[in-house]
Formats: sequence, structure tokens, C-alpha cells
Amino acid sequence: MTKKVVLVVEYNGSAYKGWQAQKNGVPSVQENIEKALSVIANHPVKVVCAGRTDAGVHASAQVIHFETHVQRNERSWTMGANTYLPSDISIVAAKYVADDFHARFSALTRRYRYVIYSADFCPAILSKGVTWTYKRLDVEAMQQAAKVFKGTHDFTSFRAVGCQAKTPMRTVLNFEVQSFGQYVVLDVRANAFLHHMIRNFAGVLMSIGAGEKPVEWAEEVLRSKDRTKGGITAPPFGLYFVDAEYPENFHVPKNALGPHFLPFVEEPNYELPS
Amino acid sequence: MTKKVVLVVEYNGSAYKGWQAQKNGVPSVQENIEKALSVIANHPVKVVCAGRTDAGVHASAQVIHFETHVQRNERSWTMGANTYLPSDISIVAAKYVADDFHARFSALTRRYRYVIYSADFCPAILSKGVTWTYKRLDVEAMQQAAKVFKGTHDFTSFRAVGCQAKTPMRTVLNFEVQSFGQYVVLDVRANAFLHHMIRNFAGVLMSIGAGEKPVEWAEEVLRSKDRTKGGITAPPFGLYFVDAEYPENFHVPKNALGPHFLPFVEEPNYELPS
Repeated sequence: MTKKVVLVVEYNGSAYKGWQAQKNGVPSVQENIEKALSVIANHPVKVVCAGRTDAGVHASAQVIHFETHVQRNERSWTMGANTYLPSDISIVAAKYVADDFHARFSALTRRYRYVIYSADFCPAILSKGVTWTYKRLDVEAMQQAAKVFKGTHDFTSFRAVGCQAKTPMRTVLNFEVQSFGQYVVLDVRANAFLHHMIRNFAGVLMSIGAGEKPVEWAEEVLRSKDRTKGGITAPPFGLYFVDAEYPENFHVPKNALGPHFLPFVEEPNYELPS
Repeated sequence: MTKKVVLVVEYNGSAYKGWQAQKNGVPSVQENIEKALSVIANHPVKVVCAGRTDAGVHASAQVIHFETHVQRNERSWTMGANTYLPSDISIVAAKYVADDFHARFSALTRRYRYVIYSADFCPAILSKGVTWTYKRLDVEAMQQAAKVFKGTHDFTSFRAVGCQAKTPMRTVLNFEVQSFGQYVVLDVRANAFLHHMIRNFAGVLMSIGAGEKPVEWAEEVLRSKDRTKGGITAPPFGLYFVDAEYPENFHVPKNALGPHFLPFVEEPNYELPS
């Protein structure tokens, strides 16, 4: 009998050409995970994720599922599979789940954080874990501008040319811009995201924060429904997939560090309004 | 006329075979820095550092010096050289310095931090930036054991077989063991260090913290003056060179994040007793 397993996965995307397995043998997170799970299952495993991440993008709590006909305990799907994974990919939770669960189609919301580091010098130790800018950022202007993105909109202006989504309509439930010392963190929750949507938000907000564009420009870009009006796509380095929400009855596990895990920035009282 | 320049350098050592330039073309931090400075100087530059780090070891504030006969402003030696450096190496400060300054021989003390992460799962995002152990660590036992390392001792038991230092005598001025959530951080300041000295301290303290050895074992290992009695050398991943002190008259600059910069762990009130 085939059973479904849901996993929570943490990874550093710096060394990978993105989540998705590709035919030409380039390194992907998916391929590494499928290989490791296939060893434990003793049969080929295919996984489906909540949100496919681009090259260089990280995840503190990607959610994935797969099907198997073998019986293993949940520790085998975590600890066991981890012994076959490189140190920059970890399976942090596993659970058997109802047959109608689907990591992508059952997800109600996704949440990403985009971590910017503003200082004279590139932070070499964090390197590809943050997006560095030498420009000083006006966080209040960024906060003001971000308000316009909340709600249900046609996000054509923030959608990559190659985006395959059927509709450009998305609902942004939360959009927080917060600063912690030299960091500025965008924290965005939506029903789903278009391709490059957050990196395009980040591009617009960084231009506004740097004073190169006025606060009102965010609304202009949104209303134009034209990607060419939206300026640059910010780099992938500071982007983290941090959460996916599902109907409670599936009892999907969380990363032990929880949805409040803010990569590289410890802020005990930091909590996203829901 | 030849002048001396002192630089502060931050780097992520994950991609390098250590600080020192090697003849066989393996990637080193030193070689990258010398190449970048040579472009700015328009002549070959050789640099000397305060403490040579091993493969995989990081630095938040390595101190180096070089000689040049060209006149450049200090921003050229930082911002200018950084444009020729990869994102995991940054020159964060530069200053002209007295002729009798020497990054290695003028240093009064060096300071390292060793960052351990204790949890069921390898922290994939931090990956090679911390040393992961699935074992739970008794921090009080580690603190107790570390006391014996303070002061002037023959550290033969903590010295790599290939260590080229003339004497095994070193003076440890501070040795703090502190926990921050799932992190345990060793913070050690000494006049100088033997090869692998901190990683060998870490090996002993992690065994004591895990309850595999009693607190008294630290003193036994020290007294034995025998490396083979000292257990394993802990991995390089969590090790950071964080400071070097010089006589005040040299006015050596600091990393803007200062000596209290604790890689990956923000703790505003954290201060090392001097």
C-alpha cells in the first residue's frame, strides 16, 4: 500500500542551480534529496515541494512530500536520509500524512524573507547568505511603499518574463519591512508567488530606500502592469523560503526553529502579525 | 619611499585551503588578497598576517600588512581592492602605519571564537560556518574544564604534530565558554597559538560537554604533554579569527563590528572580560 510522507527541509542554496532537478546534471536541491530518500526507501523516490526556489535561494522550512510503499519510521526519513545528504541540505522533520495531502496544491500560503545587509563593505562571512548594498536605506520609506503591495492585485509588473503561472493575480497577506542593526528584512506572506516576485519587490523597495525613487513609485509600478517599468530584479542571495501553511487537519510539522526563525538575525521578540 | 599599510580583513574560509598561498595553485585567501592589492598598487604585493588560518577557518578581523612605494588613499586599499576580490573576502579597513609595525611580530595577543551548534539536525543554512554536533552539551562542565587552560602552560598536548613553533609554551589570557540558545561559543585570547590549539581545546571540551569524559580529563590531557592523549581535533568549520591586539601607538584599525562581533549570534550585551 502506498503511503504519503511530508518532510520539512532546510537548505543553503548557494551551491545549487535552484530547487528543481534538471536533465543536464547541474546540481539541484531536489535531485540530492531524491537520491538520499531513494537509498532509505530502496526504490526511486520523486518529491514535490511547496515552492520551487531559484538558483542561490535558501530555505529554512521548505515543505515537500513523496509516496512510498515501504514502511520506515519517521527518524529514518530524517536522520537516515541526512546521512546521504551534503551538509548544506537537512531534512529536519518527517511525518506520515493523509493521502489527499499535496505539498504544492494543499498549501494555503507561502512565506519568504529577504535579508539585506547595508554597509560599506560586503559581509564576507555571510557572503551569499544576504544581499549586500553599500547604499544607506531609509527603512520608513520602504515600509510606507510596501503597504501598496498588500491585498489582492494583478502583479504583472513583478512577474518574470518566463513565469508560467496562469494568472498574475495574487493575494499578499503580510508585508513587513524591519531593520535590525545593519540588516533590513522583508517578510512577505501570500497565497502564492509569481516567478521572481519577491526579488522584484526587493528591487523596487531598495531603490526607494536608497532615495533613487519616491515612495509613490511602488504604486506606479504596480498600476502599470508592465514588468519593464519595475526596475531591477534584486539578487537571489538574501532570499529564504521560511514557511508554508496547510489546513490544520494535515498536521504538517514545522522546523523546530519555527516560523520566527530569521536567518542570521536573532531577535527573540520578533513576531509576524498574522 | 616605501610605506607600510595595515589592513583588517574579513573572510569566509569555506572555499579556501587556508590563509597561506601555496605553490600548486590551490585557492588561498592570501593569494586572492595579494592579487587584488597588486592591481591597485600596480606592482606585486606580498602580505603578512597576524595569524595564519587553516583550511575552512574564517576571520572577522584578520590583520595584515604590506609594503608599497606608491601613494594611494586609504579607500583605494579597501573599496578599490574589494572590487577585485570575491564576495567571501572583504578588506574592511586600511591605514598607513609606522615602519616598525609587523602584523605578526608586533601582535601582543590573538583571539579566536569557536562556534558549536548542538541540535538533532545539521544547520544546513549555516553549514560550514559552525561545527555541528547532535550531542547535547553540558556547558557548565565545559566552563569548569576550560579553567585549567588559563595561564602560562606547556601546551604540547594541544599542538599538531607538524607544528613549527619553537616552544610549546603559551599564555592563555581569557577562555570563556558561553551558550546562546543552541549555540555554544568558545572565546579564547592568548599571546599566540600553536597549530590546531583551539580545535584541540574544542575536541577535549566537546567530549567533556557530551559526558564522555569527566571535567578532570582536561587537566590530565594538559599535564600529560602528549598529543596522543588529547582525543580528536574538532573540525575547522566553527573557527573564527576575531581579533589581534597591538601596542596602542600603532593605531591599528578595527573591524567596524568590533571585537564583540560574534559570528551568527547577535547578543548585544555580550562582552568579554579583559
